[in-house]
Amino acid sequence: MKIICSKSNLVRGVSIVSKAVPSKTTMPILECILIDASADIIKLTANDMELGIETQIEGEVEERGIIALNARIFSEIVRKLPDNDVTIKTDESSQAIITCEKAKFNIAAQSGEDFSYLPVIEKESYITVSEFTLKEVIRQTIFSIADNDTNKMMTGELFEIDDNILKVVSLDGHRISIRKIELKDNYSPRKVIVPGKTLQEISKIIGGEADVNVDISFTKNHIVFEFDKTVVVSRLIEGNYFKINQMLSSDYETKVKIHKKELLDCIDRATLLIKEGEKKPIIIDIRDESMELKIKSQIGSMDEEILITKEGKDLLIGFNPKFLIDALRVIDDEEVDLYFMNAKAPCFIKNENESYIYLILPVNFNAVA
Amino acid sequence: MKIICSKSNLVRGVSIVSKAVPSKTTMPILECILIDASADIIKLTANDMELGIETQIEGEVEERGIIALNARIFSEIVRKLPDNDVTIKTDESSQAIITCEKAKFNIAAQSGEDFSYLPVIEKESYITVSEFTLKEVIRQTIFSIADNDTNKMMTGELFEIDDNILKVVSLDGHRISIRKIELKDNYSPRKVIVPGKTLQEISKIIGGEADVNVDISFTKNHIVFEFDKTVVVSRLIEGNYFKINQMLSSDYETKVKIHKKELLDCIDRATLLIKEGEKKPIIIDIRDESMELKIKSQIGSMDEEILITKEGKDLLIGFNPKFLIDALRVIDDEEVDLYFMNAKAPCFIKNENESYIYLILPVNFNAVA
Repeated sequence: MKIICSKSNLVRGVSIVSKAVPSKTTMPILECILIDASADIIKLTANDMELGIETQIEGEVEERGIIALNARIFSEIVRKLPDNDVTIKTDESSQAIITCEKAKFNIAAQSGEDFSYLPVIEKESYITVSEFTLKEVIRQTIFSIADNDTNKMMTGELFEIDDNILKVVSLDGHRISIRKIELKDNYSPRKVIVPGKTLQEISKIIGGEADVNVDISFTKNHIVFEFDKTVVVSRLIEGNYFKINQMLSSDYETKVKIHKKELLDCIDRATLLIKEGEKKPIIIDIRDESMELKIKSQIGSMDEEILITKEGKDLLIGFNPKFLIDALRVIDDEEVDLYFMNAKAPCFIKNENESYIYLILPVNFNAVA
Repeated sequence: MKIICSKSNLVRGVSIVSKAVPSKTTMPILECILIDASADIIKLTANDMELGIETQIEGEVEERGIIALNARIFSEIVRKLPDNDVTIKTDESSQAIITCEKAKFNIAAQSGEDFSYLPVIEKESYITVSEFTLKEVIRQTIFSIADNDTNKMMTGELFEIDDNILKVVSLDGHRISIRKIELKDNYSPRKVIVPGKTLQEISKIIGGEADVNVDISFTKNHIVFEFDKTVVVSRLIEGNYFKINQMLSSDYETKVKIHKKELLDCIDRATLLIKEGEKKPIIIDIRDESMELKIKSQIGSMDEEILITKEGKDLLIGFNPKFLIDALRVIDDEEVDLYFMNAKAPCFIKNENESYIYLILPVNFNAVA
C-alpha cells in the first residue's frame, strides 16, 4: 500500500475515528485504526464492537492496500509531523513507513484481515437534524444518565420519534431530563435506547454547525449517524425504556418564576461549603416575593435571598444542589419556572410548551440535617 | 474587625498570597491567610515558614482587627461571590461573616495570634530587574534544577551578582543552565542559593511587564522580592554552590549552526517513540552539511535529516532527548550554535556573548542500545 495525503486531513480523520478506539482492551487489533485504500479512496476505521466509526479522507492512492496501525502511536506521530504531505507505505515485512518532508518513521503494522469492519447497514429510513441541534440535545440531557452499569438501561438515552417530534430522555433514578425537538418531516413511530457513550463521542466529533445535517437511521440493533463523509454505527441498548409518562404531572401547589443565572450562581456558591462526597442538601424556603436558599456544613453556612414571582403556597424543600445546577446550566432561558407539589414530591423545571422538562426529586433534609 | 473591599481586589490579593500556603501541613494555622486590618490598611499574609508572601489590598477598614481564615475555603468563596463590594466581619465568637449583595457566608475563623508573621528584614541594598526579565530568567533555567531532595543544593538556583551582572545557574548532575543578565547599576559581589519552589511561585505571581520593576534584596538567610505592594520573603539554601567554572570549556572539535525550531521539532517528534520512564537516547550523526537524528525503540524507529553549517570533525553522539528539548525551548534565537568535543564530553549550546550557556552531558548509546 502507498497513500499520500495532507497532514491536516490525516489529523482530522484520525482524531474522528480515534473516538471508537477503546482505552483498555485485551485485543490489540481493537486498538488499531484501519487504513483502507483498497479502492481509490482512503477510509479510516476504528471499531470497539459497540461503537464503530468510519471516515473518508482526501488523498491519493498510489498503491492499493489495507493496513491496521496502533491508534495511539499513529495519531501521536501524525500530529507531530511537519505541516505538509504525508506518505504512508507498507512493504512485505509488517512495517509501515510514514514519511513527511525529511522525517521518516518506521512502526509495526498489522494486516487488516483480523479487523472487524463496521456492520453493513441496510438503511430504510432516516431522520435529519442539524449538527447544532444534535449536539445541543445531547448536552442538555447527557448529565442525567446513570454512570454505572447496575442498570444498563439508565446508561443510555431514549430517542423517541413520533410524527415530527424527536423526544430525548435520560434518567438516573433521582431525576429525569426530557427535551423535545421538532423535525422537518413526519416519521412513523420509533423508540430506541442509545448508549450514553455513543452520544458523548458523537457530540465530540460533530462540528455543531446549524447548517450541516446529520442523518440518523436505525436498524433492529443499531443506530447510524452519517455526516460529512463520516459514518458512526453504534449498538442499541436492548429492552423497553422506563414508562416516564406516569411520573410526569402537570398539577402543582407552588409555582415560582425566577431569574435563572441568579439562582444558578447562588447554588453554585453554596456548593463551596460541601466537601466532595458529602451529601448536604440545599434548603429552599419559598415565601411570597422571595426565596431563601440555605446550606450548612462542617465548613460553615451560607444563606442568600433571591427575588421571585410566586403563585400558590409557601414551601420549604431540600435538594441535592448538583441536580439543580446540572439542569439550570443547560437551560438557555433567562427566566425559568419551577413547579412544586409538596416537600416530598418532585420539582419540575419546564417551559410552557414543554420543549424541556427537568424533574428532580427532593431530599428529606430533616433526616439529613 | 470589619473591612469592605471589592471582590476583584480581594481575588487578586488572595491568589497572590495563596502561593505561600502549603498544600500539606499538620499545622492548621499555616493553611490560613491572615487578614491584618490592625491599621488603616488591609494586608493579606500567608507563610509556610520557608516562603512568606504579604500583599496590601485596597479597601476600607471600618473596624480594626486581625483574623486568620482557611486559605482554600476563603479563596473559593471569594472567587464565587458576585462582582461587587465584599464585607468581612468578625464577631466575638470565632466566626467570620462574609457578605456580598444578598449572599452571606459564615465560616470558622482563627485568631491571628498564632500566625507566624514574615521575618522583619533590614534592607541594606537591593538590585532592580523588570518583572519581564525576572520571569524570563526563571523560565530559562528552572527546568534543570533537581526535583528531589537528595542534594538540597540542586533544588535551588544560584543567583550571583558581580558588578552589573546577575548570573543565574541551575544544575541537576546531567546538565547546567546559565543565564547572564545585565543590570542597570553596579553592585558588590554576592552569591546566594534561592529555593526552586520560591522562584516557581514568584514567577506565577509577577505580571511579566517590562516596565514594572522588582526589587530584590538579601539578608544573611533570606531573599526578599518587592513589587506592586507585595513582599515575598524566602529562606535561602545554606552552603557553597557547586564550582561550575571548571566544568565550562571553550575548546571544541565540532561546531554546528542549526535552525533551532527545526531541531526542536525533530527531537520532539522522536520522543513519541519513547514510552514514559524508558531511557532511549537520540543519536545525532553530524556530517559535513547535514545532521541525521535517529531514535529506535520497541514502538518503532525514526530518522530525519537537518541541514547544518559545520566546522570541525564529524561526530556520532547520543543524548537524552528531553535535555535537548528543555534547553532549546527556552532559547529565543532562530539559529543556535552547538559545540562538541567528542562523544563522551558535554555539548554546549551557547551564544557568542555567552548570555546563555546550556551544558548537556551525552549518553553512552552503545551501552544502552
